[in-house]
Order: sequence, then structure tokens, then C-alpha cells
Amino acid sequence: MNFVPGFKLGILGGGQLARMLALAAYPYGFQVYIYAKDPKEPAAQVTPHVFVGEPHDREALKNFLRQCDAVTFESEFLDATLLEGLCQESRVSVFPSPSLMGLLQDRLTQKQILFKHKIPTASYQEVSSESDFQKLKTFSKDVVLKQRRFGYDGYGTFFVNTTKNLLLWKKELQAKSAHGFIAETRIKFKRELALLLARDRHGQIVHFPLVESKQTNARCDWVMGPIQHPREPQLRKSLQLFLKKINYVGVMAFELFDTGQELLVNEIAPRVHNSGHYSLDALTLSQFQAHVLAVADCKLPSPQVLSAFAMANLLGQSTPIPQWDADWFYKNPSSQLHWYGKADSRKDRKMGHINSLSSTPQKALKQAQRARKKVRL
Amino acid sequence: MNFVPGFKLGILGGGQLARMLALAAYPYGFQVYIYAKDPKEPAAQVTPHVFVGEPHDREALKNFLRQCDAVTFESEFLDATLLEGLCQESRVSVFPSPSLMGLLQDRLTQKQILFKHKIPTASYQEVSSESDFQKLKTFSKDVVLKQRRFGYDGYGTFFVNTTKNLLLWKKELQAKSAHGFIAETRIKFKRELALLLARDRHGQIVHFPLVESKQTNARCDWVMGPIQHPREPQLRKSLQLFLKKINYVGVMAFELFDTGQELLVNEIAPRVHNSGHYSLDALTLSQFQAHVLAVADCKLPSPQVLSAFAMANLLGQSTPIPQWDADWFYKNPSSQLHWYGKADSRKDRKMGHINSLSSTPQKALKQAQRARKKVRL
Repeated sequence: MNFVPGFKLGILGGGQLARMLALAAYPYGFQVYIYAKDPKEPAAQVTPHVFVGEPHDREALKNFLRQCDAVTFESEFLDATLLEGLCQESRVSVFPSPSLMGLLQDRLTQKQILFKHKIPTASYQEVSSESDFQKLKTFSKDVVLKQRRFGYDGYGTFFVNTTKNLLLWKKELQAKSAHGFIAETRIKFKRELALLLARDRHGQIVHFPLVESKQTNARCDWVMGPIQHPREPQLRKSLQLFLKKINYVGVMAFELFDTGQELLVNEIAPRVHNSGHYSLDALTLSQFQAHVLAVADCKLPSPQVLSAFAMANLLGQSTPIPQWDADWFYKNPSSQLHWYGKADSRKDRKMGHINSLSSTPQKALKQAQRARKKVRL
Repeated sequence: MNFVPGFKLGILGGGQLARMLALAAYPYGFQVYIYAKDPKEPAAQVTPHVFVGEPHDREALKNFLRQCDAVTFESEFLDATLLEGLCQESRVSVFPSPSLMGLLQDRLTQKQILFKHKIPTASYQEVSSESDFQKLKTFSKDVVLKQRRFGYDGYGTFFVNTTKNLLLWKKELQAKSAHGFIAETRIKFKRELALLLARDRHGQIVHFPLVESKQTNARCDWVMGPIQHPREPQLRKSLQLFLKKINYVGVMAFELFDTGQELLVNEIAPRVHNSGHYSLDALTLSQFQAHVLAVADCKLPSPQVLSAFAMANLLGQSTPIPQWDADWFYKNPSSQLHWYGKADSRKDRKMGHINSLSSTPQKALKQAQRARKKVRL
């Protein structure tokens, strides 16, 4: 590729993912354009090129797109049809493509595309009518109901025992049914893993190491790696083929269930992901670098692991002023703080994270958890 | 220390050092305020808070200082007296202190302070009068004449043989004498080394590994490390004491001559330095992180070396559009490009640098030099 100084990278969204994408773009000499709801958002703090607008504001979006050489997004929950039309009008490309974003933002079409490409995943059933709901009784005893759109961090996810409390949930869900649901067989897993792949506009695909991730109260608590799994090479091959077949560009995150026997894909995110934040410190290429390079028409270098690692999220508590035990960090320099610069803290809000390096993932995790206690949130 | 989200870090200057300081400040959640001559400068591209002004504009500087919680600079050639007065008026601190900046920006007072603190350095003589010039004949056969102020990258440095061409240089220098000169004994060195130290506002001092640096045409060509030298621990001790005695805050760079027997301090820079750019990729703490943490009243973690490393500067050539051989970088992921986003390229201008990691400094250097050939400037 031709490296273009001054390349104008547009990012739809102003949160921490957009901020870390922006910071990854700068060492390549790129300029960063941010489309955010509020100039106080994390990503709007790190560029002079801030466009304030609502996600559905046609004119504001079009005006933004026209400033950029290529555009990406930090959340897949945008209006795919609107965005696709604006891309054609403004002749500016959005990566990953709005049509793929549209397919993957909907858990039903996401499941359909996974099955179509023979990616191992839990079986599912659409739940959009009364009769769909009745069929659940024969589908599985334990199901997970997931809102088709706008679900994240556990929002819109419900665990149902179809022999015991199906009717109870039916009422609950009818109230929240605006987006429809899918039901999945509830998988008994030993642990959750995650895998990131990135594909550039030239078709080259690179992969990041397999990691274990721990969810607590449906939110990512920590991540550690690299993890070995005998099924990983085969799954990775399938996923690489999948990215190629759908002509995907950018980082894609795969959340996985390790059942002990097999690796099943739980969910896909067509973007950089919390499970890849460790890559800022532990690899020669971060997920944010990989994503911006792919979007900017550069070929991707293959990330190398520098050290075993762990990441611990810093979730908001009551007090808005965090305190940091600098003496501890002084004595433990292999733990790095990443703070997102959010204007307000609130309970369980992702305020930052800590990356720790050590000789094993387990030691790194202990270190990251110790480090987390040294930041009072 | 108390970690303060939203801390407002001011940086005087808009070049690549200011840009890399800004990028290092963001993961801590700091806000960055840039005082630059032009909004197109590298650092002005990475923040919404850009103040355009001349370095001597009293009112513009005062207005800038008032926005910030603490301020630093990327060049020591500022008006120290003006800055010191403005600090008092606006009650905002500049680190390192303007008075120390003033002392160290002048090669004569820099030499005096080095001698006062018994730091090993070449002997010198002031050259400000006709009789000073005559005395050079008895001072040394080979001298280096250095302009007292505003010399950098070889500008303002002249090599003189006092028995052969002293009179020739006398005429040359009288034309350029506005800032005065010092003469130093010309040191025969085997190689040039560099050492970075950083001291925080609590008095804690950390050090970076010793590196070898190669100057070509009086400009930094490459740096590699870590380098061992039997005299380094003792010199480091003296320099740590020096920083403590002068109550210095921030990163200080020491350029050294390795004569084969001893280590002599050639020059000091009271700021982050080209010889420390490798730290962006090879250490757990970069020089830029160390400097911004020190200025922001945080205690400094001690940097750990992740890998042997080398840095190669990318100097401007004729063409303004660089091309990057992405295939090579794809196969060599341990080489990282850092591009400064300068609006214009010109011959020998520092446009970016490459950091390479490998198992030894020499291998990393070969890698960095190979990588440099893959960027056509």
C-alpha cells in the first residue's frame, strides 16, 4: 500500500473505543475526525476535528462523511440503511461495510450467517410470535433469550427454564419486545474465551492470541492470555474463511464458549472489543492499530506476543474522583493504567482498564487484580 | 499522589516532541493544551485545545498558562525570564522550572553548572571577547566552538584547529557572534552514548537504559540499546545527585562521549529527547509517559526493558509523499513506524522514526535500518 500522511480517518462515536482508535492512528500520521453526541466525550478530547451530531441526523452525518478519506465506527448499533445510502451519496467508504454491520447487529441474522458459514455455535430459534414462544417448550429446557438488537453487557439477555417459568418470562418479554428475540440453547461452559481477527482491504488476515475472559454481573471483569486450546487452530481457520467469504474489513471479535470438548462462538462484534484491550501493552500491534491500518487501506503486520498478559476493567463506583496508589505502581511498573477521560462516573460504567504483564497469564492476572485494588474508583 | 482525571497539561510548542508527549498523556485521562505557532503543527493535530501564538507573546502566553494545571515545553530555547514572571502572575507552574531552563539553554552556564556539580565533561573556555579568542591558542589545539544559545542538530557548532585556521574562523564567527560562544576541548571518542533520567515532583528519580547513538551530518541517525558500560552506574549516581541538588522535575537527557576510558557528558537537554524515542516500544514506560507523569505530580514507575531495541530516524528527502512497503512491515512486525504528521517535508527534516525490537541491540539496529529503506521519503 501507499502510506498516506495526513490520511483522514473518520470514527462514528466518541467513547473509549473511538478514543483508543484515535490514539492508535496518530503514530501513523493520520488525522482523526470524530462524530460524537457531545464534545466532552472521551474521543472528542483527543482531536481538533469534532463533529457533534445525533446518530440518525442525516445531514450532519453526510457533512461528516465528506470530510473523511474513510470511516469506521465504535458501535455496531447504527442505522445501517441510512449509512449505506450516505456512503454512496458521499462516495466515502465505511469499514466494516454498513451492510455487514446491519447483518451482525441483529442476533437473528448474525446466527443465520454463522450457520450458513458452518461456524460452531449454539442452536437457536426465532421468537417473534406467540407460536414461536410456545415452541420454546420443545426447543430446550434451558434457554437464553436475547433481544435481537441493542443488547450489550447483559442488557437484553434473559435466562429461562422452559419447564418452570416460561409464562412468567412471556409477560416480561412482551413488554420489551420492540426488537424481537432469539432463543439459544443455554450452553454449559467451563470458561469463556475470545479471539480477535483482523482483515485488511487487500484480503490479508492476521489473528490475535486466544484469551480467557471472565464476565461478572454480565460485564467483562478481566481477560488473560495467551491461552492454548487444541481446537483453536481449526476454529481460527473457519473464522478466517468466514471473514474472507463475507469480504470483511477491520477487527472482528469472537466471544467463545469452551465446553471442555469444543469451542462454540457465542457472539460476534464487528469492531474492536474489550477482550482485546490487553493488546495495547502486550503485543507488537494493538487491536486499535490493526483496525485503523485496515480501514486506511494499509496491509496488516502480524501481531507478536511480547509477554503473557492480563487486563482488568475499572468499573465506576460512587465517587467521581479516582485515587491511584502511585507507590504501588512505582514498584510494579509492568502494570499500566488506561483511563478513558469520561466526564462522569457512575456505577459499573467502564472508566478505564489496567494491563499487566508477567511470565504467565495467571501471574499477570494476579498482578492486574492487585493493581485494580490500588485504584479507588 | 492523587490521580486527577481531567488534569490539564499544557505544552509549549507544537512539534513532534509535543505531539508524543500529548499522546502519552491521554491514556492517563489527562487533557492536553498546546501552544503552537501554527494550527497545522504536529501536536496541534491531536487536541481540541490549541492556542496559536508566538513564543514571545506575553498576553497570549499568559492566557494559555491560565488554562492549564501545569505546563511543560518541548524546546529549552524559550524566554526564561518572561516565562518565570508569567508563572508567578498566573500561579501556574512550568516544569522543568524556567530558571533551570534558562541556565541550561546557555552552553556557558550549562558548563558552569556541570563543573559546579563535578559532572565529568570536557574542559571549556568562554569566548566573548577578542582576548578570549587569542587565549584559544593556548587552550587546546583542537577545539569545538559552540554558539551559546539556539544551537541544535549541529547548527552553531564549529570545529577549529587553533594552530592552523584560527583566524579564518575568527572572521566567520564575528559575523555570527550575537549569542557568544564557548570553546571546548575536542574530545576523541570511540562512540556516543546517551542516558535519560527522570525526576518527579516528589523527588523520586528513575533511569532509562544506556544507549548508543550515532550522529551523521550532525543529526541523530540511529540509537540502539540497552548498552552496558562499567562506568555507567557511577555516572548515573552523580547525575541523580545532580538532579536532586538542582531540584529538577521531568526527563533530562544526557548526551555522552565514551572515550574508551571514561564517560564524559557532552550536552544536556532539559526535556524529552530523540535518543529516547525507542522507549515508546521497547520499555514498560516511555520517556514521554515519564515526563508527563512527573509534570502532573504523579510518582514515576521505574521503566523495565521489554526487549533489545534500535531507533532509526526518518529524515525528509525531496518528495513530500512518503511510500511505505507494507509487505515488508507485514513480515517484520517488530518494526514500528512513528510518523509525526508534519505538513511539509524538507531535506533532513525529522519526519518520523522507526523502532525495532530484536534479541540484541545490533540485530535490532540492522532491522531498523532495513525498515528505514522500506519507507521512501
